[in-house]
Amino acid sequence: MATKGAEDAGVNDTGPSEVPHDTTLTAGQDEWSAYSGTRSTVKDKPLSSDELDKLTRYFHATLYLCLGMLYLKENPLLREPLKREHIKPRLLGHWGSDAGQSFTYIHFSRMVKKYDLDAFVISGPGHGAPGLISNFYLEGVYSETYPNKSEDVEGLQRFFKQFSFPGGIGSHMTPETPGSIHEGGELGYSISHAFGAVFDHPKTIALTIVGDGEAETGPLATSWHSNKFLNPATDGAVLPVLHLNGYKINNPTVLARISEDELIKLMQGYGWTPYIVAGSNLEEMHQAMAGTVEKCVQEILHYQKEAREDGKVYRPRWPMIILRSPKGWTAPRKVEDHYLEGFFRAHQIPLPKVHADDEQFKILEAWMRSYKPDQLFTEEGKLIPELRELPPKGNKRMSANPITNGGTIRKPLKLEDFRKWAIKVTNPGTLMAPSMNTFGEWMADIMKRNPTNFRLMGPDETESNKLSAVYAVTKKVWMGGYLPEDEDGGNLAPQGRVMEMLSEHTVEGWLEGYTLSGRHGLLNSYEPFIHIIDSMVNQHAKWLEKCAEVSWRQQVSSLNILLTSTVWRQDHNGFTHQDPGFLDVVANKSPEVVRIYLPPDGNCLLSVMDHCFRSTNYVNTIVADKQLHLQFLPMDDAIAHCTKGLGIWPWASNDAGAEPDLVMASCGDVVTQEALAATALLRQHLPELKIRFVNVVDLFKLMPHKYHPHGCTADEYAAVFTSDRPVVFNFHSYPWLVHRLTYQRAGQQLMHVRGYREKGNIDTPLELAIRNGTDRFGLAVLAIDCLKGVLGNRGSAARERFEKEKMESMAYAYETGLDPEDFTGWTWPF
Amino acid sequence: MATKGAEDAGVNDTGPSEVPHDTTLTAGQDEWSAYSGTRSTVKDKPLSSDELDKLTRYFHATLYLCLGMLYLKENPLLREPLKREHIKPRLLGHWGSDAGQSFTYIHFSRMVKKYDLDAFVISGPGHGAPGLISNFYLEGVYSETYPNKSEDVEGLQRFFKQFSFPGGIGSHMTPETPGSIHEGGELGYSISHAFGAVFDHPKTIALTIVGDGEAETGPLATSWHSNKFLNPATDGAVLPVLHLNGYKINNPTVLARISEDELIKLMQGYGWTPYIVAGSNLEEMHQAMAGTVEKCVQEILHYQKEAREDGKVYRPRWPMIILRSPKGWTAPRKVEDHYLEGFFRAHQIPLPKVHADDEQFKILEAWMRSYKPDQLFTEEGKLIPELRELPPKGNKRMSANPITNGGTIRKPLKLEDFRKWAIKVTNPGTLMAPSMNTFGEWMADIMKRNPTNFRLMGPDETESNKLSAVYAVTKKVWMGGYLPEDEDGGNLAPQGRVMEMLSEHTVEGWLEGYTLSGRHGLLNSYEPFIHIIDSMVNQHAKWLEKCAEVSWRQQVSSLNILLTSTVWRQDHNGFTHQDPGFLDVVANKSPEVVRIYLPPDGNCLLSVMDHCFRSTNYVNTIVADKQLHLQFLPMDDAIAHCTKGLGIWPWASNDAGAEPDLVMASCGDVVTQEALAATALLRQHLPELKIRFVNVVDLFKLMPHKYHPHGCTADEYAAVFTSDRPVVFNFHSYPWLVHRLTYQRAGQQLMHVRGYREKGNIDTPLELAIRNGTDRFGLAVLAIDCLKGVLGNRGSAARERFEKEKMESMAYAYETGLDPEDFTGWTWPF
Repeated sequence: MATKGAEDAGVNDTGPSEVPHDTTLTAGQDEWSAYSGTRSTVKDKPLSSDELDKLTRYFHATLYLCLGMLYLKENPLLREPLKREHIKPRLLGHWGSDAGQSFTYIHFSRMVKKYDLDAFVISGPGHGAPGLISNFYLEGVYSETYPNKSEDVEGLQRFFKQFSFPGGIGSHMTPETPGSIHEGGELGYSISHAFGAVFDHPKTIALTIVGDGEAETGPLATSWHSNKFLNPATDGAVLPVLHLNGYKINNPTVLARISEDELIKLMQGYGWTPYIVAGSNLEEMHQAMAGTVEKCVQEILHYQKEAREDGKVYRPRWPMIILRSPKGWTAPRKVEDHYLEGFFRAHQIPLPKVHADDEQFKILEAWMRSYKPDQLFTEEGKLIPELRELPPKGNKRMSANPITNGGTIRKPLKLEDFRKWAIKVTNPGTLMAPSMNTFGEWMADIMKRNPTNFRLMGPDETESNKLSAVYAVTKKVWMGGYLPEDEDGGNLAPQGRVMEMLSEHTVEGWLEGYTLSGRHGLLNSYEPFIHIIDSMVNQHAKWLEKCAEVSWRQQVSSLNILLTSTVWRQDHNGFTHQDPGFLDVVANKSPEVVRIYLPPDGNCLLSVMDHCFRSTNYVNTIVADKQLHLQFLPMDDAIAHCTKGLGIWPWASNDAGAEPDLVMASCGDVVTQEALAATALLRQHLPELKIRFVNVVDLFKLMPHKYHPHGCTADEYAAVFTSDRPVVFNFHSYPWLVHRLTYQRAGQQLMHVRGYREKGNIDTPLELAIRNGTDRFGLAVLAIDCLKGVLGNRGSAARERFEKEKMESMAYAYETGLDPEDFTGWTWPF
Repeated sequence: MATKGAEDAGVNDTGPSEVPHDTTLTAGQDEWSAYSGTRSTVKDKPLSSDELDKLTRYFHATLYLCLGMLYLKENPLLREPLKREHIKPRLLGHWGSDAGQSFTYIHFSRMVKKYDLDAFVISGPGHGAPGLISNFYLEGVYSETYPNKSEDVEGLQRFFKQFSFPGGIGSHMTPETPGSIHEGGELGYSISHAFGAVFDHPKTIALTIVGDGEAETGPLATSWHSNKFLNPATDGAVLPVLHLNGYKINNPTVLARISEDELIKLMQGYGWTPYIVAGSNLEEMHQAMAGTVEKCVQEILHYQKEAREDGKVYRPRWPMIILRSPKGWTAPRKVEDHYLEGFFRAHQIPLPKVHADDEQFKILEAWMRSYKPDQLFTEEGKLIPELRELPPKGNKRMSANPITNGGTIRKPLKLEDFRKWAIKVTNPGTLMAPSMNTFGEWMADIMKRNPTNFRLMGPDETESNKLSAVYAVTKKVWMGGYLPEDEDGGNLAPQGRVMEMLSEHTVEGWLEGYTLSGRHGLLNSYEPFIHIIDSMVNQHAKWLEKCAEVSWRQQVSSLNILLTSTVWRQDHNGFTHQDPGFLDVVANKSPEVVRIYLPPDGNCLLSVMDHCFRSTNYVNTIVADKQLHLQFLPMDDAIAHCTKGLGIWPWASNDAGAEPDLVMASCGDVVTQEALAATALLRQHLPELKIRFVNVVDLFKLMPHKYHPHGCTADEYAAVFTSDRPVVFNFHSYPWLVHRLTYQRAGQQLMHVRGYREKGNIDTPLELAIRNGTDRFGLAVLAIDCLKGVLGNRGSAARERFEKEKMESMAYAYETGLDPEDFTGWTWPF
């Protein structure tokens, strides 16, 4: 059928041939096939024939283990003929990248031993975990970690069976895996995690295997630029190995099918020096890889020496490896006349019909035996001594590097008493002061006291977010080029410890890597755009949740996320910058690992942050506005309030000794000011009303205790909110979250929550508040409506007045573009 | 203080100098300064002096308008001396990239006219909207769209005042802006939107201005690879202009501070042919840009001709422009001895103290007058005729291109009656059939009938998601290299209409661009990883919400997101692949634009998808499992059920003519099967119980009608759920979402929801269900517990039995790795 588009284009019905054999699209086949001979940038062939033989046999041993993990539950060393009942009934796991990953690991381990390196591995394509787990087992680390997975036949059988089996381990580089700080379930974060882990670990090299599928993700694509933020003098190094496995689940990968010229330029453009190792011939590939990793290690050590001993401040064009090997390497090339090795069919279980199909069953056994397990393992079932000698020993084994269990090397942050930075509050609600700037002053002190143990991350917003006080003690790390203008307030330095790149993904990945490897940090971000990393934070929370179940994992610093430039004061940024919903995403994660704080003022912000910096194994989300703010609590009161997590503010309440008519509650700083102003309006105009003012700092206090460790018991909740009085609750985020947390509470039907709702327009703070009913007038009107039974007609005049004042305020804003002075400049009147 | 890291590295206390003037970090200053002379890859100087003069004056007119938008509310043409009261009291907006964007737009408009092109513009750094809006006004489009912003003094005054003003327009390229399909509030999607808009629009060129801040984001960094998915014969072209403005809010940009060699290689590596235009001298820059855009247009037309007339199937190395110009170009270079032009201080309002500071006030007036407004505008206040002649006319004006109001060119999808693909269900709950494969068969027909109007997007999962039936009629578009293996089931073709790249961001961006420009599509994705694009979907929902408020915006096709590979059947993928929380994110958006469907079986899936494909201006989220599934409803019943959105299933209920003892409810396919099995258990073992079975397809039915147009009224809700009987609700996602939607419903305290909760482990479907209580046994036990008052001791034996059966099932799973046969193979027994 002719189509409009095709007609327009002068293209006939069928269009160009569907199989483009006669076109430029097939012109680079030699370059992007792993079967067109071995090619290597480095020409050295450093391996003796003895070494070559041993490496090959060791490699085969790991691959045998990979297949064992995928297929076997019994008969681990095939000491009897393979039977169907030896095979797991349900076959799960990935074979595709196992060989390439094991190959890479083995070669780098050789360098670790030769150069006495301090290294660990990150597996981007975590789905190929068997390739690495098999190595960790052969090195002995797996058995040391899990003694019942011992280095013998029984241990091996258990090691095989547990893989992707109920009650066992997952098929990725999960937290249960020793040596892992990166699961690779969700793709895209291998490079940023690797950089995070080597910042301030000057001796460490992160061998980072990047899948070519992963390389297509946005987060990975920009994370190559991390090299502009790494200082060779004081940070370690990342050696990326871009594994051109060739295929994703069902597609070729982009980077495996562009010309080699483009690929090399791309990596050079990212600032790396690429070395190609391509082919499928095992002996040749061993020589090529051995020569290449050695070249890379020498370059890394050379650059570090220049920077450290010669004091040369520069950005090296660090080496990286492009490893092109067949997907499913060493599998049969074809099965049933379809490609297996070197095609996407090798992605997961290579022989899925092994249970029902005799041919596949035979192929499996022959294939496993082709690695010669009988010659690789002793009678006891342990790797033979001459191969067991190959890997490095002790903590030099990459899987045993202490930084991969970061809690073991974590040192608490050195924190001066934050009370020193207290905002002096004498009368609550009367002083305007900059909460965030004050916190920034304390941050500066923290950064000064912890010069190699703490980093402040942000996507270009640290100054906008009012934390620029830190620049008095440190700068923004910058290994890009410098211009004279930079001295005019640029705050850049190769030694800087503030890290800013306009990629939420990258800075979040750095921070995750930094904390998982035993250090501390904070990410500050505009509230609306934190949704960009919803999925990363989800995954990190899952990682922490699982770590808590793994006994040998020591606790790491919490991931601290400070959200500012919040929804209520986005001004001209408008509708796209209004989204306080990150809290909903976080609240879905395990109560064991998530915490949410909304400090109402500057002293509470300090108190909350102090708690967060000391805490471990949480994702702490803190929401605080960056603008000038009314201050409520003297420091001691703030500490007491934050420690309780919620409480009545007696100075704002007039229900002492009695049951209140109304509870006015708030959670969030801007909305607290409005709720307080509404309380003042009500008390001025309806002085007979008994109003209790409640503020919530720790959001999970609202949740029943059985669902969250911070949750109030029923009695605690009722003591604050009552169970039979109307509650007007002014909330920072979408209102439903409060209902979600409190739907089981007695009196929940009397809970009236105001918060943000999506309605597109450009808004001043006042306008936005009024349109959402979170403004003082709206709240006061709502309160009167709730109290109809109590007030009768008494509220009508006040209600009318509030409605009128709201209209006047809006009219003023529309006329002038400004909020009325009494709106922004309001203070507590009692 | 000496630090451990520094000691380790052999670095002394102070480390390398903080100001690296004597290092390689300053070695490229000529390259990355816009002040080191004009440099251009293309050497042509095509402009006559007359043209040059006119272009310069036109450019100045746009810049004058930019400043007017930022500063003025009165005296728009400065026909009287500037007074403080002419200036907006609150100054909001961005100046930084205005000049570069206007410059680019003007030069490309010249090409549009010369070559009679069909083009439009995408502004990546939407914060520099004045640079383009000023052009749209001068072209007349703004006044045609908003007649009171007429081309005269009064109109201009209103045009200025409304910018970033309450009741006016936002400061980005918001939906109110004619010619915009991309707001640029959240950064990163300009290139993917541009590609989406030109797919199947073979004549269209998307001039795409990419900010160098935006270029640091992950989504943007990978979207350059979109050129591997564009067919020059049948698609249009994208001309990216990477605007090296040099600075973000407070930092230099990465790409502006790497060597030019790296930058060029990076772009070449991405598959583009970069042309550099760099400098600050206006005359020279005009010549350079004029020559460069012409070269680019000629190349684009040449490649298209080769592909279309000569039938050459290849991937051109499309041209792109790297424009390096000063940030805030044409502003004063320094103010108060600090850099303004060419530094990050020019990012937002260049003279923020103009109200209070006499010096700044004077500078502003002089600066504005330097553009000579008195010579650019007629007495009436319209651009003088000789300049008014410059832009193209009518719909050739980029801001008037109909594809930027996609609804105007949208054609409904050609849909065969989906009943043709009905699954034949005779007895409900007894047939196992593949819902997703069946939908795939219908998809194939849709793709056949709509060969230039519909695209199926996915991140490498279309086959895994069981939609591979489409490959019978089309292939996956692939302009990367081909290998012989691809013919063994690779399903690749340059003409393919399935689009797969392992970047959720890119495929989502393509689909957004494709639908906003008037076409149709579907994104299919694994459920857990849809969180990767939370923020994009948020932004798209906001765009649609605002469009609905803009009267001239015609309705576009809904954004359809099909989530499969869902939480309940993630098998070995484990904990990282378990997250059904996207629904919470979507549910926060405006009720006017979001819809969520969870069809319980194959026929319901067809009915729901038919509705979604016909709908406009929504974000439709559909959740459906891809595995074999029990089928419940014959097609007519399915249509009736989906049309109602929720309902009682009489065949599964035994409460006819009576009030039920219990309502068993479900929403989601896997959980419906379990809820039904629980119902069967209860009815078999406690036949005296009256149980009503309810299924919910349209999640928002649960919400009160006043909060969502789909919401049930109180009566409708009570007619289904009762208001006084216990409800056991088995839910696909996190359980709290149901509570959030129903907390105001009468009887909500009797609502017991089971759903997914975060607990890390490797799980079979059975294990996961049991651990979350969504399994048949758990639900039946819960029901008995809820009915204690009714049942007394009668339920004890049944309860014990159910607990025992659960344990036996689990034990079997742990032993074998399989779910018991009766769990997966269960059918409705009545």
